[in-house]
Amino acid sequence: MALLDDLKWRYATKKMNGTKVSQDKIDYILEAARMAPSSSGLQQYKVIVVSDRDLLEKIKGVAYHQSQITDCSHLLIFAAWDGYNDERITKVFNYMMDERDLPHSTMDSYKNTILSLYEIQGQEWQAHHAAKQSYISFAMAIAAAAEQKVDATPIEGFLSDKLDELLKLRDGGYRSTVILPLGYRKEEEDWLVNMKKVRLPKDKFITEMTIEDAADIGDLPMTQTLDGFAQK
Amino acid sequence: MALLDDLKWRYATKKMNGTKVSQDKIDYILEAARMAPSSSGLQQYKVIVVSDRDLLEKIKGVAYHQSQITDCSHLLIFAAWDGYNDERITKVFNYMMDERDLPHSTMDSYKNTILSLYEIQGQEWQAHHAAKQSYISFAMAIAAAAEQKVDATPIEGFLSDKLDELLKLRDGGYRSTVILPLGYRKEEEDWLVNMKKVRLPKDKFITEMTIEDAADIGDLPMTQTLDGFAQK
Repeated sequence: MALLDDLKWRYATKKMNGTKVSQDKIDYILEAARMAPSSSGLQQYKVIVVSDRDLLEKIKGVAYHQSQITDCSHLLIFAAWDGYNDERITKVFNYMMDERDLPHSTMDSYKNTILSLYEIQGQEWQAHHAAKQSYISFAMAIAAAAEQKVDATPIEGFLSDKLDELLKLRDGGYRSTVILPLGYRKEEEDWLVNMKKVRLPKDKFITEMTIEDAADIGDLPMTQTLDGFAQK
Repeated sequence: MALLDDLKWRYATKKMNGTKVSQDKIDYILEAARMAPSSSGLQQYKVIVVSDRDLLEKIKGVAYHQSQITDCSHLLIFAAWDGYNDERITKVFNYMMDERDLPHSTMDSYKNTILSLYEIQGQEWQAHHAAKQSYISFAMAIAAAAEQKVDATPIEGFLSDKLDELLKLRDGGYRSTVILPLGYRKEEEDWLVNMKKVRLPKDKFITEMTIEDAADIGDLPMTQTLDGFAQK
Protein backbone atom coordinates (compact mmCIF):
# COMPACT_ATOMS: atom_id res chain seq x y z
CA MET A 1 0.00 0.00 0.00
CA ALA A 2 1.22 3.50 -0.69
CA LEU A 3 2.53 5.82 2.01
CA LEU A 4 -0.44 8.15 1.70
CA ASP A 5 -2.86 5.28 2.33
CA ASP A 6 -0.78 4.22 5.31
CA LEU A 7 -0.93 7.74 6.72
CA LYS A 8 -4.69 7.76 6.34
CA TRP A 9 -4.97 4.33 7.97
CA ARG A 10 -2.93 5.22 11.04
CA TYR A 11 -4.24 7.20 13.97
CA ALA A 12 -3.04 8.05 17.45
CA THR A 13 -4.27 4.82 19.00
CA LYS A 14 -5.87 5.48 22.38
CA LYS A 15 -6.39 1.90 23.49
CA MET A 16 -4.17 -1.07 22.71
CA ASN A 17 -4.94 -4.74 23.31
CA GLY A 18 -1.63 -6.05 24.60
CA THR A 19 -0.88 -8.26 21.59
CA LYS A 20 2.81 -8.68 20.88
CA VAL A 21 4.27 -7.26 17.69
CA SER A 22 6.60 -9.71 15.95
CA GLN A 23 10.31 -9.04 16.20
CA ASP A 24 10.69 -8.72 12.43
CA LYS A 25 8.17 -5.89 12.35
CA ILE A 26 9.90 -4.16 15.27
CA ASP A 27 13.23 -4.56 13.49
CA TYR A 28 11.75 -3.10 10.30
CA ILE A 29 10.38 -0.06 12.11
CA LEU A 30 13.70 0.53 13.89
CA GLU A 31 15.56 0.18 10.61
CA ALA A 32 13.37 2.88 9.03
CA ALA A 33 14.14 5.10 12.03
CA ARG A 34 17.85 4.41 11.60
CA MET A 35 17.76 5.25 7.87
CA ALA A 36 16.18 8.67 8.45
CA PRO A 37 18.23 11.66 7.32
CA SER A 38 19.58 14.07 9.94
CA SER A 39 21.32 17.43 9.93
CA SER A 40 24.89 16.97 8.68
CA GLY A 41 24.28 13.24 8.91
CA LEU A 42 25.16 13.34 12.60
CA GLN A 43 22.30 11.14 13.83
CA GLN A 44 22.35 13.13 17.02
CA TYR A 45 19.79 10.85 18.62
CA LYS A 46 19.16 7.23 19.45
CA VAL A 47 16.25 4.96 20.23
CA ILE A 48 15.67 3.06 23.46
CA VAL A 49 13.41 0.04 23.16
CA VAL A 50 11.45 -1.18 26.15
CA SER A 51 9.24 -4.25 26.33
CA ASP A 52 9.96 -5.14 29.96
CA ARG A 53 6.61 -4.87 31.77
CA ASP A 54 8.08 -3.62 35.04
CA LEU A 55 9.94 -0.83 33.33
CA LEU A 56 6.88 0.09 31.25
CA GLU A 57 4.92 0.44 34.51
CA LYS A 58 7.53 2.89 35.79
CA ILE A 59 7.47 4.84 32.55
CA LYS A 60 3.69 5.02 32.65
CA GLY A 61 4.06 6.71 36.01
CA VAL A 62 5.93 9.62 34.42
CA ALA A 63 3.68 9.69 31.35
CA TYR A 64 0.33 10.78 32.77
CA HIS A 65 -0.65 7.14 33.24
CA GLN A 66 -1.50 6.74 29.58
CA SER A 67 -2.67 3.17 29.06
CA GLN A 68 -0.80 2.63 25.81
CA ILE A 69 2.50 2.64 27.70
CA THR A 70 1.63 -0.67 29.33
CA ASP A 71 -0.82 -2.06 26.74
CA CYS A 72 1.69 -1.70 23.93
CA SER A 73 4.03 -4.43 22.80
CA HIS A 74 7.17 -2.30 22.57
CA LEU A 75 7.81 1.29 23.54
CA LEU A 76 10.28 3.34 21.51
CA ILE A 77 11.89 6.26 23.32
CA PHE A 78 13.69 8.77 21.13
CA ALA A 79 16.54 10.59 22.85
CA ALA A 80 18.68 13.34 21.35
CA TRP A 81 22.02 14.92 22.21
CA ASP A 82 21.73 17.60 24.86
CA GLY A 83 24.16 19.81 22.93
CA TYR A 84 26.95 19.87 20.38
CA ASN A 85 30.68 19.79 20.94
CA ASP A 86 33.81 19.04 18.98
CA GLU A 87 34.31 15.59 20.47
CA ARG A 88 30.83 14.33 19.65
CA ILE A 89 30.82 15.65 16.12
CA THR A 90 34.35 14.47 15.41
CA LYS A 91 33.51 10.95 16.52
CA VAL A 92 30.60 10.66 14.06
CA PHE A 93 32.46 12.30 11.19
CA ASN A 94 35.53 10.11 11.71
CA TYR A 95 33.33 7.04 11.56
CA MET A 96 31.67 8.34 8.41
CA MET A 97 35.01 9.03 6.72
CA ASP A 98 36.29 5.57 7.68
CA GLU A 99 33.21 4.05 6.08
CA ARG A 100 33.85 6.09 2.95
CA ASP A 101 37.60 5.46 2.85
CA LEU A 102 38.35 9.15 3.15
CA PRO A 103 40.83 10.86 5.50
CA HIS A 104 39.37 12.24 8.73
CA SER A 105 40.63 15.70 7.83
CA THR A 106 38.12 15.81 4.94
CA MET A 107 35.56 17.02 7.44
CA ASP A 108 37.63 19.58 9.33
CA SER A 109 36.49 22.70 7.54
CA TYR A 110 32.83 21.74 7.50
CA LYS A 111 33.00 20.68 11.14
CA ASN A 112 34.45 23.99 12.21
CA THR A 113 31.76 25.85 10.28
CA ILE A 114 28.87 24.05 11.94
CA LEU A 115 30.51 24.13 15.37
CA SER A 116 30.84 27.90 15.18
CA LEU A 117 27.23 28.22 14.02
CA TYR A 118 26.04 26.04 16.89
CA GLU A 119 28.19 27.63 19.57
CA ILE A 120 26.67 31.09 19.21
CA GLN A 121 23.19 29.63 19.65
CA GLY A 122 23.78 28.21 23.11
CA GLN A 123 23.02 24.83 24.60
CA GLU A 124 19.23 25.02 24.84
CA TRP A 125 19.01 25.84 21.14
CA GLN A 126 21.42 23.00 20.42
CA ALA A 127 19.28 20.52 22.36
CA HIS A 128 16.21 21.68 20.44
CA HIS A 129 18.11 21.37 17.18
CA ALA A 130 19.19 17.81 17.94
CA ALA A 131 15.65 17.01 19.10
CA LYS A 132 14.24 18.22 15.78
CA GLN A 133 16.39 15.67 13.97
CA SER A 134 14.97 12.94 16.20
CA TYR A 135 11.49 13.95 15.03
CA ILE A 136 12.42 13.02 11.46
CA SER A 137 13.47 9.58 12.65
CA PHE A 138 10.34 9.39 14.80
CA ALA A 139 8.20 10.21 11.73
CA MET A 140 9.88 7.46 9.72
CA ALA A 141 9.08 5.02 12.54
CA ILE A 142 5.43 6.17 12.48
CA ALA A 143 5.26 5.67 8.70
CA ALA A 144 6.99 2.30 8.90
CA ALA A 145 4.65 1.09 11.64
CA ALA A 146 1.63 2.10 9.56
CA GLU A 147 3.05 0.26 6.56
CA GLN A 148 3.38 -2.86 8.74
CA LYS A 149 -0.17 -2.37 10.03
CA VAL A 150 1.20 -1.89 13.49
CA ASP A 151 -0.59 0.71 15.57
CA ALA A 152 1.36 3.48 17.22
CA THR A 153 0.70 6.50 19.38
CA PRO A 154 2.97 9.51 19.03
CA ILE A 155 3.33 10.81 22.61
CA GLU A 156 4.90 14.01 23.90
CA GLY A 157 2.90 13.95 27.12
CA PHE A 158 5.48 12.74 29.64
CA LEU A 159 7.83 14.32 32.15
CA SER A 160 11.04 14.26 30.15
CA ASP A 161 13.25 15.14 33.12
CA LYS A 162 11.85 12.23 35.09
CA LEU A 163 12.13 9.86 32.15
CA ASP A 164 15.74 10.93 31.61
CA GLU A 165 16.43 10.19 35.25
CA LEU A 166 14.69 6.81 35.14
CA LEU A 167 16.56 5.73 32.02
CA LYS A 168 19.83 7.44 33.06
CA LEU A 169 19.90 9.37 29.80
CA ARG A 170 21.55 12.58 31.02
CA ASP A 171 24.71 10.74 32.06
CA GLY A 172 25.25 9.83 28.43
CA GLY A 173 24.45 13.34 27.22
CA TYR A 174 20.97 12.56 25.94
CA ARG A 175 17.50 13.92 26.59
CA SER A 176 14.28 12.09 25.82
CA THR A 177 12.32 13.88 23.10
CA VAL A 178 9.29 11.83 22.17
CA ILE A 179 7.97 8.30 22.68
CA LEU A 180 6.11 5.81 20.52
CA PRO A 181 4.19 2.82 21.88
CA LEU A 182 3.78 0.09 19.23
CA GLY A 183 1.03 -2.48 19.40
CA TYR A 184 -2.45 -3.24 18.19
CA ARG A 185 -5.65 -1.29 18.66
CA LYS A 186 -8.50 -2.46 20.88
CA GLU A 187 -11.20 -0.93 18.79
CA GLU A 188 -14.16 -1.50 21.07
CA GLU A 189 -12.51 0.54 23.83
CA ASP A 190 -10.93 3.22 21.66
CA TRP A 191 -13.06 6.35 21.55
CA LEU A 192 -10.93 7.91 18.84
CA VAL A 193 -10.83 5.13 16.27
CA ASN A 194 -14.09 6.01 14.55
CA MET A 195 -13.79 9.77 14.71
CA LYS A 196 -13.05 11.68 11.57
CA LYS A 197 -9.40 12.39 10.89
CA VAL A 198 -9.26 16.16 10.67
CA ARG A 199 -6.56 18.07 8.86
CA LEU A 200 -6.39 21.69 7.77
CA PRO A 201 -7.94 22.12 4.32
CA LYS A 202 -5.41 22.22 1.50
CA ASP A 203 -5.89 25.92 0.88
CA LYS A 204 -4.99 26.70 4.50
CA PHE A 205 -2.08 24.30 4.64
CA ILE A 206 -0.46 25.09 1.30
CA THR A 207 0.45 28.54 -0.02
CA GLU A 208 1.93 29.05 -3.44
CA MET A 209 4.13 32.11 -3.76
CA THR A 210 5.75 33.97 -6.63
CA ILE A 211 8.09 36.94 -6.78
CA GLU A 212 4.99 39.19 -6.78
CA ASP A 213 4.14 38.05 -3.25
CA ALA A 214 7.62 38.52 -1.87
CA ALA A 215 9.07 41.48 0.00
CA ASP A 216 11.94 43.48 -1.39
CA ILE A 217 14.75 42.76 1.03
CA GLY A 218 17.36 44.57 -1.01
CA ASP A 219 20.73 43.27 -1.99
CA LEU A 220 21.81 40.26 -0.05
CA PRO A 221 25.16 40.39 1.60
CA MET A 222 25.51 36.63 1.70
CA THR A 223 28.55 35.48 -0.16
CA GLN A 224 29.27 32.40 1.90
CA THR A 225 28.58 29.07 0.26
CA LEU A 226 27.98 25.78 1.99
CA ASP A 227 29.59 22.86 0.30
CA GLY A 228 31.94 20.03 0.87
CA PHE A 229 29.70 17.77 2.83
CA ALA A 230 26.28 16.37 3.22
CA GLN A 231 24.67 13.43 4.82
CA LYS A 232 22.92 11.01 2.53
CA MET B 1 8.38 -0.50 -3.13
CA ALA B 2 8.50 -0.56 0.64
CA LEU B 3 9.31 2.50 2.74
CA LEU B 4 12.63 1.06 3.86
CA ASP B 5 13.75 0.60 0.25
CA ASP B 6 12.64 4.14 -0.52
CA LEU B 7 14.69 5.46 2.40
CA LYS B 8 17.73 3.58 1.14
CA TRP B 9 17.17 4.88 -2.40
CA ARG B 10 16.92 8.54 -1.40
CA TYR B 11 19.88 10.74 -0.60
CA ALA B 12 20.46 14.43 -0.02
CA THR B 13 20.76 15.27 -3.70
CA LYS B 14 23.57 17.75 -4.28
CA LYS B 15 22.97 18.48 -7.95
CA MET B 16 19.63 18.59 -9.71
CA ASN B 17 19.03 18.74 -13.46
CA GLY B 18 16.17 21.23 -13.71
CA THR B 19 13.56 18.73 -14.91
CA LYS B 20 10.03 19.55 -13.83
CA VAL B 21 8.23 17.26 -11.43
CA SER B 22 4.65 16.53 -12.51
CA GLN B 23 1.89 18.26 -10.60
CA ASP B 24 0.35 14.97 -9.50
CA LYS B 25 3.57 13.97 -7.80
CA ILE B 26 3.87 17.36 -6.12
CA ASP B 27 0.26 17.06 -4.96
CA TYR B 28 0.95 13.59 -3.59
CA ILE B 29 3.98 14.77 -1.63
CA LEU B 30 2.07 17.73 -0.21
CA GLU B 31 -0.82 15.48 0.74
CA ALA B 32 1.53 13.22 2.69
CA ALA B 33 2.87 16.32 4.46
CA ARG B 34 -0.68 17.39 5.25
CA MET B 35 -1.61 13.98 6.66
CA ALA B 36 1.30 13.95 9.12
CA PRO B 37 0.36 13.81 12.80
CA SER B 38 1.15 16.78 15.03
CA SER B 39 1.03 17.57 18.72
CA SER B 40 -2.61 17.84 19.82
CA GLY B 41 -3.53 17.73 16.13
CA LEU B 42 -2.88 21.45 15.88
CA GLN B 43 -0.92 21.39 12.62
CA GLN B 44 1.00 24.36 13.90
CA TYR B 45 2.80 24.75 10.58
CA LYS B 46 2.17 25.17 6.89
CA VAL B 47 3.98 24.67 3.62
CA ILE B 48 4.86 27.35 1.09
CA VAL B 49 5.44 26.09 -2.44
CA VAL B 50 7.68 28.02 -4.81
CA SER B 51 8.36 27.22 -8.44
CA ASP B 52 8.72 30.81 -9.66
CA ARG B 53 12.29 31.13 -10.93
CA ASP B 54 12.74 34.74 -9.86
CA LEU B 55 11.69 33.98 -6.32
CA LEU B 56 13.88 30.88 -6.21
CA GLU B 57 16.85 33.08 -7.18
CA LYS B 58 16.08 35.35 -4.25
CA ILE B 59 15.76 32.40 -1.89
CA LYS B 60 19.05 30.98 -3.10
CA GLY B 61 20.63 34.25 -2.04
CA VAL B 62 19.67 33.60 1.59
CA ALA B 63 20.48 29.88 1.40
CA TYR B 64 24.23 29.87 0.93
CA HIS B 65 23.77 29.81 -2.84
CA GLN B 66 23.01 26.11 -2.85
CA SER B 67 22.38 25.11 -6.44
CA GLN B 68 19.40 22.86 -5.68
CA ILE B 69 17.33 25.92 -4.82
CA THR B 70 17.30 26.98 -8.46
CA ASP B 71 17.86 23.60 -10.14
CA CYS B 72 14.89 22.05 -8.40
CA SER B 73 11.41 21.90 -9.84
CA HIS B 74 9.54 22.99 -6.72
CA LEU B 75 10.80 24.22 -3.38
CA LEU B 76 8.81 23.41 -0.25
CA ILE B 77 9.29 25.77 2.68
CA PHE B 78 7.99 24.55 6.03
CA ALA B 79 6.95 27.32 8.40
CA ALA B 80 5.71 26.86 11.96
CA TRP B 81 3.86 29.03 14.46
CA ASP B 82 6.14 31.39 16.33
CA GLY B 83 4.28 30.66 19.57
CA TYR B 84 1.04 29.44 21.10
CA ASN B 85 -1.92 31.45 22.26
CA ASP B 86 -5.57 30.91 23.04
CA GLU B 87 -6.83 32.39 19.79
CA ARG B 88 -4.70 30.22 17.53
CA ILE B 89 -5.44 27.02 19.38
CA THR B 90 -9.15 27.77 19.70
CA LYS B 91 -9.45 28.35 15.98
CA VAL B 92 -8.01 24.94 15.13
CA PHE B 93 -9.96 23.10 17.81
CA ASN B 94 -13.23 24.76 16.79
CA TYR B 95 -12.66 23.66 13.22
CA MET B 96 -11.88 20.14 14.40
CA MET B 97 -15.03 19.96 16.54
CA ASP B 98 -17.14 21.27 13.65
CA GLU B 99 -15.73 18.53 11.44
CA ARG B 100 -16.59 15.97 14.12
CA ASP B 101 -20.03 17.39 14.89
CA LEU B 102 -19.09 18.05 18.49
CA PRO B 103 -19.63 21.23 20.50
CA HIS B 104 -16.68 23.63 20.66
CA SER B 105 -16.68 23.38 24.44
CA THR B 106 -15.57 19.75 24.17
CA MET B 107 -12.03 21.03 23.92
CA ASP B 108 -12.05 23.66 26.66
CA SER B 109 -10.51 21.64 29.44
CA TYR B 110 -7.81 20.10 27.25
CA LYS B 111 -7.06 23.46 25.67
CA ASN B 112 -6.57 25.10 29.04
CA THR B 113 -4.26 22.29 30.12
CA ILE B 114 -1.95 22.60 27.13
CA LEU B 115 -2.05 26.40 27.18
CA SER B 116 -0.89 26.45 30.78
CA LEU B 117 1.86 23.93 29.99
CA TYR B 118 3.04 26.03 27.04
CA GLU B 119 2.84 29.38 28.79
CA ILE B 120 5.36 28.52 31.47
CA GLN B 121 7.87 27.48 28.81
CA GLY B 122 8.06 30.85 27.09
CA GLN B 123 7.87 31.82 23.45
CA GLU B 124 11.22 30.51 22.22
CA TRP B 125 10.39 27.08 23.57
CA GLN B 126 6.96 27.32 21.95
CA ALA B 127 8.46 28.17 18.57
CA HIS B 128 10.83 25.20 18.87
CA HIS B 129 7.92 22.99 19.86
CA ALA B 130 5.87 24.04 16.85
CA ALA B 131 8.93 23.67 14.62
CA LYS B 132 9.41 20.09 15.83
CA GLN B 133 5.93 19.24 14.60
CA SER B 134 6.82 20.64 11.19
CA TYR B 135 9.73 18.20 11.06
CA ILE B 136 7.28 15.29 11.20
CA SER B 137 5.46 16.72 8.20
CA PHE B 138 8.80 17.41 6.52
CA ALA B 139 9.80 13.78 7.05
CA MET B 140 6.57 12.54 5.50
CA ALA B 141 7.28 14.73 2.47
CA ILE B 142 10.78 13.24 2.22
CA ALA B 143 9.38 9.71 2.39
CA ALA B 144 6.61 10.51 -0.11
CA ALA B 145 9.09 12.05 -2.56
CA ALA B 146 11.29 8.96 -2.35
CA GLU B 147 8.27 6.74 -2.97
CA GLN B 148 7.52 8.80 -6.10
CA LYS B 149 11.17 8.55 -7.16
CA VAL B 150 11.45 12.29 -6.86
CA ASP B 151 14.76 13.53 -5.51
CA ALA B 152 14.83 15.88 -2.57
CA THR B 153 17.39 17.66 -0.44
CA PRO B 154 16.56 18.33 3.21
CA ILE B 155 18.07 21.76 3.89
CA GLU B 156 18.51 23.65 7.14
CA GLY B 157 21.32 25.80 5.78
CA PHE B 158 19.57 29.11 5.16
CA LEU B 159 19.13 32.39 6.99
CA SER B 160 15.69 31.86 8.45
CA ASP B 161 15.26 35.49 9.53
CA LYS B 162 15.97 36.67 6.00
CA LEU B 163 13.73 34.04 4.46
CA ASP B 164 10.93 35.01 6.84
CA GLU B 165 11.36 38.61 5.76
CA LEU B 166 11.41 37.73 2.06
CA LEU B 167 8.28 35.60 2.31
CA LYS B 168 6.60 37.91 4.86
CA LEU B 169 6.16 35.00 7.24
CA ARG B 170 6.50 36.84 10.55
CA ASP B 171 3.47 39.01 9.83
CA GLY B 172 1.33 35.89 9.84
CA GLY B 173 2.98 34.55 12.98
CA TYR B 174 5.14 31.96 11.25
CA ARG B 175 8.84 31.17 11.13
CA SER B 176 10.53 29.15 8.43
CA THR B 177 11.92 25.91 9.84
CA VAL B 178 13.31 23.79 7.04
CA ILE B 179 13.19 23.65 3.25
CA LEU B 180 12.98 20.86 0.69
CA PRO B 181 13.86 21.27 -2.99
CA LEU B 182 12.15 18.62 -5.15
CA GLY B 183 13.48 17.63 -8.53
CA TYR B 184 15.69 15.10 -10.26
CA ARG B 185 19.32 14.29 -9.72
CA LYS B 186 22.03 15.14 -12.22
CA GLU B 187 24.20 12.18 -11.42
CA GLU B 188 27.28 13.06 -13.42
CA GLU B 189 27.71 16.28 -11.45
CA ASP B 190 26.67 15.00 -8.05
CA TRP B 191 29.69 14.12 -5.93
CA LEU B 192 27.55 12.52 -3.23
CA VAL B 193 25.42 10.16 -5.28
CA ASN B 194 27.89 7.28 -5.36
CA MET B 195 29.20 7.64 -1.83
CA LYS B 196 28.22 5.09 0.75
CA LYS B 197 25.21 5.96 2.84
CA VAL B 198 26.52 5.89 6.39
CA ARG B 199 24.35 5.36 9.44
CA LEU B 200 25.27 4.52 13.01
CA PRO B 201 25.51 0.75 13.47
CA LYS B 202 22.40 -0.80 14.98
CA ASP B 203 24.08 -1.49 18.30
CA LYS B 204 24.95 2.19 18.70
CA PHE B 205 21.57 3.44 17.53
CA ILE B 206 19.31 1.06 19.45
CA THR B 207 19.48 0.29 23.16
CA GLU B 208 17.18 -2.24 24.79
CA MET B 209 16.47 -1.55 28.43
CA THR B 210 14.83 -3.49 31.22
CA ILE B 211 14.00 -2.63 34.82
CA GLU B 212 17.50 -3.83 35.75
CA ASP B 213 19.02 -0.98 33.77
CA ALA B 214 16.78 1.71 35.21
CA ALA B 215 17.42 4.07 38.09
CA ASP B 216 15.31 4.01 41.21
CA ILE B 217 13.52 7.32 41.11
CA GLY B 218 11.30 6.55 44.07
CA ASP B 219 7.58 6.99 44.29
CA LEU B 220 6.16 9.14 41.58
CA PRO B 221 4.00 12.01 42.63
CA MET B 222 2.25 12.16 39.28
CA THR B 223 -1.45 11.67 39.65
CA GLN B 224 -2.54 13.78 36.71
CA THR B 225 -3.88 11.91 33.73
CA LEU B 226 -4.06 13.17 30.18
CA ASP B 227 -7.21 12.19 28.43
CA GLY B 228 -10.13 13.56 26.53
CA PHE B 229 -8.43 14.41 23.33
CA ALA B 230 -6.01 13.34 20.73
CA GLN B 231 -5.29 14.12 17.17
CA LYS B 232 -5.59 11.30 14.72
